[in-house]
Amino acid sequence: MKFIRVDMASKSVNIGDVPEQYAGLGGRALTSIFVANEVKPTCHPLGKSNKLIFAPGLLSGTTAVQSGRISVGAKSPLTGTIKESNAGGTFSQKLARMGIKALVLEGVPAEDKFYVIKVTMDGVTIEDAPVEIIGMGNYEAIQVLRNKYGDDVGIAIIGPAGEMKLAAANISFRDPEGNIRSAGRGGLGAVMGSKKVKAIVVDDKGAPGVPIANPEAFKAAARVFAESLRKHPVTSEGLTRYGTNVLVNILNEAGGLPTENFRYGRNDWANDIGGETMTATMEARGGNPSHGCHRGCIIRCSQHYVDKEGKYITSGFEYETIWGLGANSKIKDLDQIAYIDRAMDDVGVDSIETAVTIAVAMDAGVIPWGDGKAALDLVEQIGKGTPLGRIIGCGAAVTGKCFGMYRVPVVKNQAIPAYDPRAVKGVGLTYATTPMGADHTAGYAVATNILRVGGFVEPLKKEGNVELSRNLQIATAAVDSTGMCLFIAFAILDIPEGLTSLIDMINAQYGLSLTADDVTELGKTILKAERGFNERAGFNKYNDRLPEFFDEECPPHNTYWDFTEEEIDEVFNF
Amino acid sequence: MKFIRVDMASKSVNIGDVPEQYAGLGGRALTSIFVANEVKPTCHPLGKSNKLIFAPGLLSGTTAVQSGRISVGAKSPLTGTIKESNAGGTFSQKLARMGIKALVLEGVPAEDKFYVIKVTMDGVTIEDAPVEIIGMGNYEAIQVLRNKYGDDVGIAIIGPAGEMKLAAANISFRDPEGNIRSAGRGGLGAVMGSKKVKAIVVDDKGAPGVPIANPEAFKAAARVFAESLRKHPVTSEGLTRYGTNVLVNILNEAGGLPTENFRYGRNDWANDIGGETMTATMEARGGNPSHGCHRGCIIRCSQHYVDKEGKYITSGFEYETIWGLGANSKIKDLDQIAYIDRAMDDVGVDSIETAVTIAVAMDAGVIPWGDGKAALDLVEQIGKGTPLGRIIGCGAAVTGKCFGMYRVPVVKNQAIPAYDPRAVKGVGLTYATTPMGADHTAGYAVATNILRVGGFVEPLKKEGNVELSRNLQIATAAVDSTGMCLFIAFAILDIPEGLTSLIDMINAQYGLSLTADDVTELGKTILKAERGFNERAGFNKYNDRLPEFFDEECPPHNTYWDFTEEEIDEVFNF
Repeated sequence: MKFIRVDMASKSVNIGDVPEQYAGLGGRALTSIFVANEVKPTCHPLGKSNKLIFAPGLLSGTTAVQSGRISVGAKSPLTGTIKESNAGGTFSQKLARMGIKALVLEGVPAEDKFYVIKVTMDGVTIEDAPVEIIGMGNYEAIQVLRNKYGDDVGIAIIGPAGEMKLAAANISFRDPEGNIRSAGRGGLGAVMGSKKVKAIVVDDKGAPGVPIANPEAFKAAARVFAESLRKHPVTSEGLTRYGTNVLVNILNEAGGLPTENFRYGRNDWANDIGGETMTATMEARGGNPSHGCHRGCIIRCSQHYVDKEGKYITSGFEYETIWGLGANSKIKDLDQIAYIDRAMDDVGVDSIETAVTIAVAMDAGVIPWGDGKAALDLVEQIGKGTPLGRIIGCGAAVTGKCFGMYRVPVVKNQAIPAYDPRAVKGVGLTYATTPMGADHTAGYAVATNILRVGGFVEPLKKEGNVELSRNLQIATAAVDSTGMCLFIAFAILDIPEGLTSLIDMINAQYGLSLTADDVTELGKTILKAERGFNERAGFNKYNDRLPEFFDEECPPHNTYWDFTEEEIDEVFNF
Repeated sequence: MKFIRVDMASKSVNIGDVPEQYAGLGGRALTSIFVANEVKPTCHPLGKSNKLIFAPGLLSGTTAVQSGRISVGAKSPLTGTIKESNAGGTFSQKLARMGIKALVLEGVPAEDKFYVIKVTMDGVTIEDAPVEIIGMGNYEAIQVLRNKYGDDVGIAIIGPAGEMKLAAANISFRDPEGNIRSAGRGGLGAVMGSKKVKAIVVDDKGAPGVPIANPEAFKAAARVFAESLRKHPVTSEGLTRYGTNVLVNILNEAGGLPTENFRYGRNDWANDIGGETMTATMEARGGNPSHGCHRGCIIRCSQHYVDKEGKYITSGFEYETIWGLGANSKIKDLDQIAYIDRAMDDVGVDSIETAVTIAVAMDAGVIPWGDGKAALDLVEQIGKGTPLGRIIGCGAAVTGKCFGMYRVPVVKNQAIPAYDPRAVKGVGLTYATTPMGADHTAGYAVATNILRVGGFVEPLKKEGNVELSRNLQIATAAVDSTGMCLFIAFAILDIPEGLTSLIDMINAQYGLSLTADDVTELGKTILKAERGFNERAGFNKYNDRLPEFFDEECPPHNTYWDFTEEEIDEVFNF
């Protein structure tokens, strides 16, 4: 396989063999161990010493269902920590089928102009970006690039926010239809912007595909694996029918749906913005409630949300975004939320970070609570680079600072997502301790606390949640290395052959004989590498804390964040 | 002596005896050990758990020359570290003469209105702030308070920036004439603003004065001490005649005057903004080139800088401010710089942080290089709370983030002051390692590197600078505890009886028999308490680093920052 390094300082490309120490790695395992090895932890995230790595997962490019995630890694401009963020789309499968283990952007150019990197089977070239796409929204820019480079090319792109190097800037990937999926968290779009790369275009014509050591065994395991997903109610019904937005009513019922900048855990308008209403609306208008973000997806939690005339507004319309705008910012109109979601994708900012930031801005009195038009204007101001737009585009921590706020829901400067840590305590421990800054996907204890997947641990009490968060963080680090969508976790937590068939696929592809213990060890190795980087970047255990205001009681359960420092520090005791 | 705690949550005042563990402490020793003991290191700096402490130094209120500094401490909203910032004015001496060891503000009120705290010999009251001073500049607000509370009262006040809780907000103290001195660094004005205290007014009518255990010995030591200052050329000629701005030409000559956001160490217009020109201008216009910021000052480095009509513009017109605007931002007109300095004092922001921030904004293209009018407008925007003003008012780190900048001269989010660390390496080590975030006053190696005070250590080489920075940081922590102006250090470094008479004064006042070793031990104790707080607030040794861009060579010497991590970490090896 090939390991590609593009030096944007010298405009040179090196296509080499995979270095020994990265050979068995993929996805997050590769991005995190690479960043821990090669990026100086105290470097400026927007400077010459940071490196941005794109890595398909171990199973990406195969026929395995759900294997189309691309991992992106670097030192984060938002958190200052190591960062891995992953997304769907077509990018991962194309790179993998071309035999590309990783694509790394290094250095920064001296000159102030943007480039497009073109990756084909003939090699890698650095071209001037078409001038018209600078400052252009992602939807239109993707279309320009498709017109220029071919309708079917894979695309990674930054929007105006990434060009401006704002700390909430994401990296977007086109999905099979040309719509947008994003590696949202941690501001990796700003790193790409600092390297003056507007887009990476991948044309996989002539790609040899992924070699499989034992094709029969692979096919058999892949079948069992897909069957597990089809058997589990979350991955075959809940997510498929209502998308991730199925969670609005569930979390509201559980009293863990943060409302009004984390003042309450329940509200009386949740159903208006929930998945059931959303799907009914799409069905009535002729939208598509169930759509895959990459080829081979059978969960199909994405959708095409449309307006009253049936015209496409947005896809990948996620629970966390809808929560952040609909519950936490009190914008009670799903159409307004959809337009803001589209604007965030278009400008190129993380929809979780930005939605949480909008609630902080409302709390500061910048715009009124629940004002969807004003919120849309804020997002559009990010794209225009107004001072207010730049504040918002730097995320919740900077916005909180600029408006002198105490109530700023961040850990390590990254916005806390859609599950109140006082009502879903396992995920609170994940927010506090993951090396990524507040991130629900790093150890999704909501599964066991609320959805009763992988057993049940009481969400309102402390007991069992340290172990839950720890085990999920270890497992997740491993899953994030496979290129698999994290939602397979629902099935592998509950269905034994789900996990065994996943490992069987990896073994069949690479001719290995890994066990479940090996997978656990891989997860631990990744987390230790990440945490080691963070320590050398200036973080210690005292950064593993939730904001002080979570000592307030959260209605309706009136629980508060009551873990001691010693208990929190036990999560990473392995 | 009295230890006063004002709880702004309950609006209650507790006037108690000095707790045992704070009995022998004053100034920075008291503020830092108090904050390390009583403030939860992971708390939000603008929340209920932070405490703001005002403490006169050990010698404040006596007849000792230079003893009028007030120390202010808290967890800093700018750096997230512990913070001590000190200033002149009349506040310290009045508190000390009233027998007040410390005044502490605790808690935050629930209601959104500002208060004035009145301290008299009859007690402490919490009053509604006069509505007209809310949002008012400091110059006018001080006059309103003098009219209301008495012409001679001591005043600590926050400006509009502090009301908005911006991270560069300072706390200002009136000087004997009613002009402004500031505890500038670290955003302590935002902490005062979070507690909704607009001002503290001190009326010392009826104060008993400071008891002296051995008056004769005190008088004798005080005489020797004053004589030492009068003997040393820096404290009797340089600072007296030209103010701190004597340093512009000296640093330019030394190639350590950061110019154009730290791109060069020398420029060809330094003399236009230097102390010699400044003094000649004041003399020609009828200003006052030599003025003391507190009663008993014999160095008199302050001045009344006036306009062409002889009208007062500003005082305490310091080298660091003039450097930040004049050299680093290339505003080559001293009058323009003076008006900006006045505006910063009036709005209530740290003039070092803000001047450095203006250069970062110029580097980002927000306003043109050298445009004094545009810079003045930026400062005025802080006071108005526009989005751009809020960005600037949060300091260089936030401004750098909002504009996607790599070249951001901060350590622990605090702006690097007026001496290039590549050309004055000892002070570079102080910037990197002091628990305060970049701060030249924490270990002013410029004295020995450039002014040849206390010996000589080569400024462009590494040798000897680790020890120099370490020893100066230890000594400074002790001096900052006496209430003495730091400039006494010039005399005590060079003149043996300067140091002995300083210790003799403390011994005579308190009936002690401290030695120079005890003073060194005190300095170490303070630094260890501060560093311990920082560790528990989430800092480790990897935060003790200069920004990456200092690996660039700095003309004219073309030296770069070449200390290894191990060498830097030796500074705090004691």
